[in-house]
Amino acid sequence: MQQSRTNLQRLFAPASVAVVGASTSPEKAGHQALLALEHFAGDVFPINPKGGEVLGRRAFESLRALPGPVDLVLFAVPAAACVEAVREAIDCNCGSGLILSAGFGETGPAGVAMQAEIERMCERSSFRLLGPNTAGFVNRQVPITASFLLAADRIPSGTIAIVAQSAGINLTLGFLLAKLGYGVSCAVGLGNAVNVGAADVLEFLAEQPGTKAIALHLEGVKDGRRLYETLKRVTPKKPVAVLTVGRENVGEFAHSHTGNLIGSYALRVSALRQAGAVVVETTEELASAAAALSLGRLPASLDAGIGVITAQAGPGLVILDQLKSRGVSVPALQESTEARIAAQLPGLGYTKNPVDTGRPGASFGDVAVALAEDPQIDAVIVYALHEPAVMSPADVLPAVAARSQKPLLFGTMGPLEEIAPLGAALRQRRIFVAESPEQLACAAAVLAEDAKLQARLSLSQRAEPRAVEHEIPNPCDEHAAKQVLEALGVSTATGIACNTHEEVHAAFRRLVKPLVVKILAPEIAHKSEVGGVQLDVRDEPGLRAAIEQLDAIPLGSARRYLVEEMAAPGLEMIVGAVRDASFGPTVMVGLGGVFAEARGDTALRLAPLTFSEAQEMIDELRGTALLAGFRGSPPLDRAALAETIVKLGDLLSEHPDIQEVEINPVRVYQRGIVALDALLSFERRDLASQK
Amino acid sequence: MQQSRTNLQRLFAPASVAVVGASTSPEKAGHQALLALEHFAGDVFPINPKGGEVLGRRAFESLRALPGPVDLVLFAVPAAACVEAVREAIDCNCGSGLILSAGFGETGPAGVAMQAEIERMCERSSFRLLGPNTAGFVNRQVPITASFLLAADRIPSGTIAIVAQSAGINLTLGFLLAKLGYGVSCAVGLGNAVNVGAADVLEFLAEQPGTKAIALHLEGVKDGRRLYETLKRVTPKKPVAVLTVGRENVGEFAHSHTGNLIGSYALRVSALRQAGAVVVETTEELASAAAALSLGRLPASLDAGIGVITAQAGPGLVILDQLKSRGVSVPALQESTEARIAAQLPGLGYTKNPVDTGRPGASFGDVAVALAEDPQIDAVIVYALHEPAVMSPADVLPAVAARSQKPLLFGTMGPLEEIAPLGAALRQRRIFVAESPEQLACAAAVLAEDAKLQARLSLSQRAEPRAVEHEIPNPCDEHAAKQVLEALGVSTATGIACNTHEEVHAAFRRLVKPLVVKILAPEIAHKSEVGGVQLDVRDEPGLRAAIEQLDAIPLGSARRYLVEEMAAPGLEMIVGAVRDASFGPTVMVGLGGVFAEARGDTALRLAPLTFSEAQEMIDELRGTALLAGFRGSPPLDRAALAETIVKLGDLLSEHPDIQEVEINPVRVYQRGIVALDALLSFERRDLASQK
Repeated sequence: MQQSRTNLQRLFAPASVAVVGASTSPEKAGHQALLALEHFAGDVFPINPKGGEVLGRRAFESLRALPGPVDLVLFAVPAAACVEAVREAIDCNCGSGLILSAGFGETGPAGVAMQAEIERMCERSSFRLLGPNTAGFVNRQVPITASFLLAADRIPSGTIAIVAQSAGINLTLGFLLAKLGYGVSCAVGLGNAVNVGAADVLEFLAEQPGTKAIALHLEGVKDGRRLYETLKRVTPKKPVAVLTVGRENVGEFAHSHTGNLIGSYALRVSALRQAGAVVVETTEELASAAAALSLGRLPASLDAGIGVITAQAGPGLVILDQLKSRGVSVPALQESTEARIAAQLPGLGYTKNPVDTGRPGASFGDVAVALAEDPQIDAVIVYALHEPAVMSPADVLPAVAARSQKPLLFGTMGPLEEIAPLGAALRQRRIFVAESPEQLACAAAVLAEDAKLQARLSLSQRAEPRAVEHEIPNPCDEHAAKQVLEALGVSTATGIACNTHEEVHAAFRRLVKPLVVKILAPEIAHKSEVGGVQLDVRDEPGLRAAIEQLDAIPLGSARRYLVEEMAAPGLEMIVGAVRDASFGPTVMVGLGGVFAEARGDTALRLAPLTFSEAQEMIDELRGTALLAGFRGSPPLDRAALAETIVKLGDLLSEHPDIQEVEINPVRVYQRGIVALDALLSFERRDLASQK
Repeated sequence: MQQSRTNLQRLFAPASVAVVGASTSPEKAGHQALLALEHFAGDVFPINPKGGEVLGRRAFESLRALPGPVDLVLFAVPAAACVEAVREAIDCNCGSGLILSAGFGETGPAGVAMQAEIERMCERSSFRLLGPNTAGFVNRQVPITASFLLAADRIPSGTIAIVAQSAGINLTLGFLLAKLGYGVSCAVGLGNAVNVGAADVLEFLAEQPGTKAIALHLEGVKDGRRLYETLKRVTPKKPVAVLTVGRENVGEFAHSHTGNLIGSYALRVSALRQAGAVVVETTEELASAAAALSLGRLPASLDAGIGVITAQAGPGLVILDQLKSRGVSVPALQESTEARIAAQLPGLGYTKNPVDTGRPGASFGDVAVALAEDPQIDAVIVYALHEPAVMSPADVLPAVAARSQKPLLFGTMGPLEEIAPLGAALRQRRIFVAESPEQLACAAAVLAEDAKLQARLSLSQRAEPRAVEHEIPNPCDEHAAKQVLEALGVSTATGIACNTHEEVHAAFRRLVKPLVVKILAPEIAHKSEVGGVQLDVRDEPGLRAAIEQLDAIPLGSARRYLVEEMAAPGLEMIVGAVRDASFGPTVMVGLGGVFAEARGDTALRLAPLTFSEAQEMIDELRGTALLAGFRGSPPLDRAALAETIVKLGDLLSEHPDIQEVEINPVRVYQRGIVALDALLSFERRDLASQK
């Protein structure tokens, strides 16, 4: 039997193809699919129980009747017939399949069962299956069009690969790329992705020489962890831009599409970026991003600087606004650069970054070179209305790019019949051409983001996380959870767990007042809400009142108490780690208290993670200013908070039975942090359900 | 002398034009401008001191030498020569002018002075002047191209008017509209806008029959209040979409462009929306928005419902995500509608909203009509990949629109040579055609937003604000400010102002403990920061300690005290009103405490405003959930808060000497609110400086 890896190649680059359900009726998918194979140079075998001839080719009665196993079988028969057809293909040692039909996991229980059966068959063999519920793929490097959508053939060839959950997005993206003047190397629709998912296609594309950049479209992701690990290997080799839906609550409709759960949007975006993929927000942006990246990346850099030249201030202002709102650096130029530019410009220009040349003249190219040669600048973007009489971009810009050796992106607008050939000429010279100020800014922002994510990725190599040398009881109450935290090196409030009132009184005498007295019972998740946290206990009468309150809480198990010293006031935050069903160990940080929950200001990463990744999380919070010494108060200990995040991530990474750990709140001080409450659970919970 | 209004018409629809600086040198603006007038049917007079002939027309030595006053004078001479030239035009009773030259307020002091002189001359006469520092305008209804940018002539004619601060944006927008298949009725660049601003052009366009929708681009706005009042009159007649820059800190570069201050982005956006203009974020969105609005608006509605039909689930999901993130309703359908749709679709479709038809078939049109006829649905959007073999949009969609009588928007993608003529055919039938899922969602969102803003505008008519019958001292300390609030009907903490320690002790005995004792001095803006607020005073020793603290604060004026009862705990918010230099009286509400300032979660409106507008402000806050009974706590008194906002707005509207009033914090309870601190100032302050 052949290796799985080879079967993936047989799927996307087959030498022979059979079409099960080949039909002479033009409206049938089995007819269209055969038609689409017209220009395929390998063997093509229509399969039809009636035999005869379909579209000029001899039809075989079954896969068994073929002279030998084919690389790829297209299944264009109704869902109910697919199970047996796939079994036959596997039995015949065919390498791979593509189920074009719908009617599986995205529909009712019968479809779900058939899909599960097919999934099992594939798992037991090395057969690789794309779909079901997909329109298929094109691979221009074979070339082959394995699809019932003939329009796919009309997307131009190029160097961008598309991997899309949806056939509709696959084709939409292909034609958006065509509109921008680019073409595809491969375009793959994943459909329900029971056996071949995005990660598999990415593995294939990483090695495909004709692919320079990858545009990825994702809805729900079944094995997020594998996608994450794959992207971490692929993105340093080839740039990946991603559009993922589900920012809003679209779960029900999404499930009706591919039968997959949509999961948490925030988690998906965080994981994709952590793995080095540039996340964009629209299909247009995805096309632009992949196009810009396919022409060339910036060297990895945490803060790439963009130089802007505009011949009209209005669009320049729009570009500057967009770059800044995307967090891109438009750095100040060196004095010598400003002087060099000023020497080229008449009195009316603006010689800082962005440079406003006023109406472009003969010196336009020299200004661009001066800007590009500034050491603060990693890429230059130029906007100029189409005025060929005063400046010819086709002559000027390639010379600038050649002289400065830094990427150059150009934006223009004018009569379409003149803009189109100009764009084509410049793209030939590897200059990205945008047709609006924002598209130009977006492309530059994508290059800077790619450079930043790759710089982060190269910094994120680290030693393996270490397990805690500490026994963890199951169930684990607050006190036990805090002992685990202490074993990890996370400070907790000084406290004593007590089984009796006498022990509580003894603890009271030993500890520094004021105290907090809490009920200790793993069955109570939200102690405060049932009166299980008695604050500010300062004297014996107060202690007796507190015990009375705690004893009034109905409880099935034995009643225990936790007596703790009250921590000094500080900024309250939340830190946690949870094992997501798709992405695995995930850490979270957010502002504490009622504000955090009302506003959802949290940052996520997959664990294990590095200290610098944890610091990035803190920086991402809208409320991050509160830690940085807001309004004259001294800065708080971000490092201790970041270390805590790393440690909780390590804990989940090294202890696969722990499902969740949360410190809510953790109090952050000028030096150090203290965990005030702690929860450690072995019960499964999904981030998906939280959004 | 003619009326100013008429001179505005003479500017944009002239019968005669003179070009000062007409030149035989092709690279000069004075040559290009004359060339652009080639097809103008009225009289054209080149003005050149040398006389002779320019471009086949007899040149006159001066404006005085002309047979009579012209409607419009184009000034294409250097800035330094413009002042005298404008004076001559006014002396000759010409109606209007257009200064194409730069070198005025956007440059150094000399330019500022020349611009001021020209502004004064215009103010003293009825001469209307466009510019300086603009590329001019086109008006297709004359037709006339008054510009040195010949490319302007190549923008197709149509029904959309562009008003842009920047010539570069003006042309960019024009060609973006052309790319979408639309054209312009007028396209006006404002430049430095010393005499004719956006408001003037809007007045003109409101009455121009050929204009169906207006696309507006703004940087800084000098007279924001006038623009606001004008838009309130114009938007009910004609839809206006706006792009305004300056979300980020781009002030310095913006000032170098037109010499105007950029002001607060948030305020500008709030005021534009309050006046009924749809605010968009990019030039592409502005073009799409104006295009969609030019085909037809929705009836005014606070919550227009969008019905979505897609032939491919993937793009449908993207559309749904976009609509939801833009706050657009995609309402559930009536059961009868779902049943009607289900009857048309084979088993695989999704019959809720969005409707997923799967591959479109013969029933596609019937499904669309069923959706459109649901009473929850105000407009229908359809997305389908270009597959003419299975569904011909050019045949199906116009019939749907005709049957349902509701606006229909269509999105598709496919081979460009087929999409283009299809789009043209559908636009002829007043169906908007988008070339991506997001562009389609954006257009629908714009229609829904326009309908919402118009519904709000029609609700915002109200009685005139009333002045306070209460003398307001200047300066006004906290106690005096609170008396003004009480006179307005805003509750404040119960308190007594004291001049001596004896009075403080007497007040202590009279009031309900615990108390707050504060220093009372208008010169101290932030009392808490200097220890001027002593909280939780419960007994005589505490009172003495508090007085001691307050007496330690260095103070130039007489030392007074404010003794107040401590208010019960509640949610802290900020309410204020400030007189903005451009937009006039403006109200603000935000969450209180350190969180509000760190996160900038505030809402703004121009005053006077209605109760319902004040309620919208509260709804806009990210933290609005905190007022709505978050986490099981009972809801707080939003109505009392909204009334307070209205009252502060009235105060500034009716008392032009008051510059600012702020309640920070105001405590919000289940019933009522209490102002804990109050500031009332007669000193000028700009929101611009706050961003």
